[in-house]
Order: sequence, then structure tokens, then C-alpha cells
Amino acid sequence: MEVNAEIISVGSELLLGQICNTNAQFLSKELAILGINVYYHTGVGDNPERLKKIIIQAQERSDLIILTGGLGPTKDDLTKDVLAELLNTKLVYNQEAMNRIEAYFKTVNRAMTENNRKQALVIKDSYVLENKTGMAPGMAYSHEGKIYILLPGPPKELQPMFLDEVRPFLHEQGIISNFILSRVLRFYGIGEAQLEADIEDLIVSQTNPSIAPLAGDGEVTLRLTAKSKTEQESEKLLDEMEKTILDRVGRYFYGYDNTSLPIEVSKLLSKKNLRIACAESLTGGLFAQLLTQVSGAGMIFNGGIVSYTNEVKNKVLNVSQKILDEEGAVSSECAKAMAENVRKILNADIGISFTGVAGPTKSEGKEVGTVFIGIAFKNKETIIYPLDLIGSRDAIRSRSAYNGFYYLLKHLRKGE
Amino acid sequence: MEVNAEIISVGSELLLGQICNTNAQFLSKELAILGINVYYHTGVGDNPERLKKIIIQAQERSDLIILTGGLGPTKDDLTKDVLAELLNTKLVYNQEAMNRIEAYFKTVNRAMTENNRKQALVIKDSYVLENKTGMAPGMAYSHEGKIYILLPGPPKELQPMFLDEVRPFLHEQGIISNFILSRVLRFYGIGEAQLEADIEDLIVSQTNPSIAPLAGDGEVTLRLTAKSKTEQESEKLLDEMEKTILDRVGRYFYGYDNTSLPIEVSKLLSKKNLRIACAESLTGGLFAQLLTQVSGAGMIFNGGIVSYTNEVKNKVLNVSQKILDEEGAVSSECAKAMAENVRKILNADIGISFTGVAGPTKSEGKEVGTVFIGIAFKNKETIIYPLDLIGSRDAIRSRSAYNGFYYLLKHLRKGE
Repeated sequence: MEVNAEIISVGSELLLGQICNTNAQFLSKELAILGINVYYHTGVGDNPERLKKIIIQAQERSDLIILTGGLGPTKDDLTKDVLAELLNTKLVYNQEAMNRIEAYFKTVNRAMTENNRKQALVIKDSYVLENKTGMAPGMAYSHEGKIYILLPGPPKELQPMFLDEVRPFLHEQGIISNFILSRVLRFYGIGEAQLEADIEDLIVSQTNPSIAPLAGDGEVTLRLTAKSKTEQESEKLLDEMEKTILDRVGRYFYGYDNTSLPIEVSKLLSKKNLRIACAESLTGGLFAQLLTQVSGAGMIFNGGIVSYTNEVKNKVLNVSQKILDEEGAVSSECAKAMAENVRKILNADIGISFTGVAGPTKSEGKEVGTVFIGIAFKNKETIIYPLDLIGSRDAIRSRSAYNGFYYLLKHLRKGE
Repeated sequence: MEVNAEIISVGSELLLGQICNTNAQFLSKELAILGINVYYHTGVGDNPERLKKIIIQAQERSDLIILTGGLGPTKDDLTKDVLAELLNTKLVYNQEAMNRIEAYFKTVNRAMTENNRKQALVIKDSYVLENKTGMAPGMAYSHEGKIYILLPGPPKELQPMFLDEVRPFLHEQGIISNFILSRVLRFYGIGEAQLEADIEDLIVSQTNPSIAPLAGDGEVTLRLTAKSKTEQESEKLLDEMEKTILDRVGRYFYGYDNTSLPIEVSKLLSKKNLRIACAESLTGGLFAQLLTQVSGAGMIFNGGIVSYTNEVKNKVLNVSQKILDEEGAVSSECAKAMAENVRKILNADIGISFTGVAGPTKSEGKEVGTVFIGIAFKNKETIIYPLDLIGSRDAIRSRSAYNGFYYLLKHLRKGE
């Protein structure tokens, strides 16, 4: 069944350019996964006349009309009112929503102002969508062959409401007739063009699951989406396609869905009971910051030294003056000394170091993007990774740090 | 003169949710500054029929119609073709644009494929907008009382083209009759509600300049916009309003326009010829990373120690075991020792330390958000700032680091 949808985002903050319309982006992505076409995005301000015209236009061309925003307590919030009037129906109080709103104000120990009550109004006979992360409920309303979905504006309310309330509703309505399951495979260290070339035949002949590549910064992800009558069948289709893909490019694979390289490294260090320390020059603390962003870092991270000047490399990290004078700070010898010494000084199992030229100017006669990453172990030879990166200063720092995580992960997985 | 504008963004990647429409956001913000109303945003895919309908609709309700995207070399790029056909005109080759495209391919030493030629086609008699950061030129075209502006999709091409080419065009057309100048004042350490209360009468009575508050994370900015016949008059209006505002809330002011706390601290350290070192626990390298993000950090930053465990605080930062056992790592005594010791160890003029509980669980019996920042000097008493922050783990780490920059800036400015 071919369903055409459109998204109408209500809110003057959009038309004033104060925010970007991430709701339209999120919904479009999710609807695409569900096999529903989105042909129009519209943004309109808190103006009843203009909103009314937009909805009338939507009725002429779409089956599923999703409205976001305008469900709040202020006098600018008018989405429900406009739609109810247009569809010749009215708003009624929903007791559950009212209870939730009153409970919220009790929790934060504040008096509920009158205008908050209007958030509990819903379109008569609509299917109420629970708001687990905010106050205003959403609504799903069928009327003369169209389905209207009203969602709150704040993304942290809209996103869970769409996933947990709207999707099952669409399933029950027969809009989505299959069980759709997605899985994202994440790759690092291979470019988008190369990855697509390695699985080209699979991409060309794809039907079910579908394969959607998406490039990030230094990362490529493949989103596999399977449709079938049951969750188990979809799961099986994904497993089979995943195996086929990883048989070819598995060495660049690092994780699923929303994981990240720091998360995977953290998990594996924890599993193997290893502690790490880092010595950073060009990355200036970025590696340590990314690692400590993962909750529980205290179990696997002792600390780091940001040795931004040669004096600090020499006095605190004990890199010999000879190395600094003869090879320079941007050298494999220096990276080796930094990694080995920080490991000992901070009493860790693994030491990792980053030294190089972030830019914008050359350093020690070396080109911007010349980077050395060192990884030192207790009972193994230190390994140095020389890199030749391009990009802005920020990009070079970021890519250096992420390459560090990538190489660490490869080493840790070797033992498995 | 009241001008109503709308923005039509063309591109299937938008409707598939692959990107967020930052172009519509940017243009809306800039048009608001110019005093031009934006009443509609529309996103539509690479489909000639749908695009044609959207433009027809736009003609009925807007004076200024801005189309973004669809000016590239592929067969999906059809904005010019659709508009030309609708307006009963044709496309012609623009020689300057063609020269630029050919020159680009020479520079990268690649053969120009035929389809790239179509980027040099422009609407006959349109005013061509130069693309300084890409290949496809934009166009401005007046027709039967409407003005059509066609801009390329990539933001790094669209933004300079709008600022440098479209704005002067609108000026010449008499769409903007004044000289409009904006200035953003940035504040830290005061909440949005409080700031607005302190300048409430100015906000209520504002005419020219206008005052637009915008809240960020821990920051509040005020965008002042002045309109007059000349740049000098606008500048003077801004200066006067700025003085009035800063006479009241100047102690929270830290910079103009797109600066940041790390940039301002960096500039001031550099000006005073001071070098800084940092000892970070809960912030895990974030302070160092923010400071080194600013180009030229090597002139003012010696390095830092990320002392994530008590062992490292004791062995590397020389924080006494007595303090760690009796007061704990999360204490003003520990922050004091960390700041003073890192200053000496890394041989800097100023040492700054961060210790606290980022969460999600308590530590040493202390609540999540308990943070101590220490600032140590060569010839002055060390100062400790105890904070009580709320928010997620990431928010607490981030706010701790930015508070550190804020307190540093206040100190450095005292001497001026």
C-alpha cells in the first residue's frame, strides 16, 4: 500500500531561524525505514490563518499528515485548535493527560498555572499518544480517509512518542503491514567509495534487506532494513546479510547501531581488565575527554598527560632531550617514548600517545597532518602508526584521536 | 516596505531525512535581521511536477521567493529548468561561470565531465551571483512583481553567496532601504530570565536598535540590530545601546559576536604573556582540548594532567595521601593542591584544576554536580570555586570546564 506523507512543522522560532528543523529530519528518516514516502516538508509560524491554508493544501495531496509543535501552554500554541476547527470537531479534556500534568507540578513543587491545562485538551475521539518525557500528549486522528498525527515540538518528546506510540498505531491501522527491523553496521578505516565497491553486487541486487550506506567523518555506516511477517524472520534476514557483508569487509567493522569507537574500546578494556593512560600533544586532551565521556571510565582509565610543549615532554614525560633535538617532537621516536613513559608513570597496562602537526602552519619543517600514534604494552613491542591526514586543524585533531581508538580496538580484538 | 519571503529547499536528501535544513535556518535568521518576513519554509524532492506546484503556490503568497539546491551537475538537479519553464523563459550559458568551472577541473587535474557544463547555465537576463566557494553560480531574477533567488545547496556555498551577493542585490533593488548592522553581546554566569529582568525596560521599549535575547548552554547572548541611513549612524546607535546595557550587566559580559570563552581567555593570556597548565579529573581533558582548539595555543599552554584516579593525583600531581584520605578527591583541599602542583610541575604562571562528581552516581558520598575549581598563581593566594551543578554527566563536565574559563577571564581582566 503506497502511503504519501507530509510533515508540517509549526512554530515561529523555525521561521525566525532560531532552530533547525531536526524533527522533520528525524521523522523523514523513520518514515523512510517504514516504507512511507514523505513528499513535502512545510514550516509555518504560530499563525492560524496560514496554518489552516497549509493543512488544506496537505489534504489535497497527502494521506498521512504529521504536524509537529504548537501543543504547549502558551497562547501561541494553536495546532489543535486550528485542526479541530477545520475538521469541524472540538477539543475535550483528557483525564490521564491532566493527571500527568498535575503530577509534574507536584514533583517540582510549583503551582500549575491555568494555561497549562490546555495541554490536556485533545481532539474528540482521537487516539491519545502518551508523552513519557514531557507534558503535552500527542494525538492520532482519522478523518475522511486521512490520518492526522499531532506531535509535541521538543525533539526529546517527539522522538520517543513517534517510536513508541505512533509506529504501533500505524501498524494497527494497517499502514505498515510488515515487521520492519533495522540494524546499523559501523565501519572505520575504509572510505565510503571503497566499501561500496567491495559490496557493490549486494547493493545493486538489494531487495530485502535493503542496504543504505551513509558516510560520517572517517566512518561509514550501512543501514540494513528487513521487512517480513514476523520479528524473527526479519532478524534472520538481517543476520544473513550481515554475515555476507562481514565476510568481505569485516576487518573494518567495529560495532552496531549507535555505538562509537570510544564506547567499544571502553567495553573491551573493561572486559579484559586493562587500564590505559594517554600522552597527548596535538590532540590536546581530546582522546582523554572522549574516553571519559563514557560512563564508568574510572574502571579503565588512569589518566593522561597533555604535553603541549617540548619542555613538558622532557620534564614530565621523560622524553630525552636527544630525541627532541635530533628527531623532533613530531617523530615516531618521540611517539614511542611518550607512549612507553606515560604507561609507566601512570602505572597502566597500555599507554597511547599522539604527536603531530595539527596546523594551520608546518612545525619542525613537517607538513600539516603529519601525525604519529604510539601504543605501548606491558609485555609487547610498542607499535607506531604514522598518519598523513588532511583537513582543518579541528579535523586533524579529531581524526588523530579517533584513529587512536580504532587501532586500540584492533589490537584488543586480536586477543579475542 | 513590507516584504514577504519564503524559502523553498529542493533535494530528496532532505525528504529522506539524511540532512537537516540548515540553509532554511541560516536564511531565515539573516532575513529577519534585514527586516524581511519569512512566512513559509518548504522542502521538496528532486521532482519537477511537485516543485512546479510549490512555486506556483509561492507566487500567490510571497514577494521574494528563495530556492535552494538543485543547481548541480546531476540529472536530479532541475531547479533552473523548472523555474525557467514556469516563467516562460530559457536557460543560456554564462561565460564567466563556464570559465570558473573549467579552471576548477584544471586545478584538480581531472577531466571535466559533460554534465558539469549544465552548472554554467543561467536563466536568461537574470543577475548572476558569483559562487566563490563552489562551481554553480546562483541567480537573482525579477519577474512580474516577484523576485526569485536561486542558491546552491551546500551551506558553505550558500552562506557566503547570500551575504556577499544577495544582500547587496536586495539593497540595490530597494528591498532593504536601510543600513542594517548587528552586534552580538555574549554573557556568561547569568541566567536568561535574570538578564532580561535587569534590562526589562530596554527590551520593552526597544525600537532601534532592536534587542533579541537568545539562550545557549550557560550562556546568554543579546543580538542588537540597528537600522539607519548609513553605517556610521548604525554603529553609533549600537554603541549607545551597548553602553546602556553594560552599565547594568557588564560584569557578566565576555565578548562579541562569534567569540567564545576559550578564545577570549587565550587572547588575554597571550596579551599578558602568561602560560597556563591544567589538572583535570572529572572534566577528563575537556578544558585542555577546548583551549588547544584555539590556534596558537602553544604560546600560552604548557600542558595538562588528566588525573582520573587517586593514585595518579597522588603519584603524579603530588596531592598528599592525607588529603585524599581525609577530605577526598572531591574537595577544595584537593582542588587547591592540584592547581598549585600542576602549575609548578609544568612550570606555568597559572594552574587551574577541576575535581568533582560528574555522575551518574555519587562519589565519596558527595552529590552528583559537586565540583571544585582551583586557580593558582605565582604570587597570589590560590582561589577555589565550589560549584553545585545539575544536568547530565556530559552537561556537568562541560559546564565545569566553561566555568573554569569564565573565572579565569574574570581574574585576567581584573588586572586590566
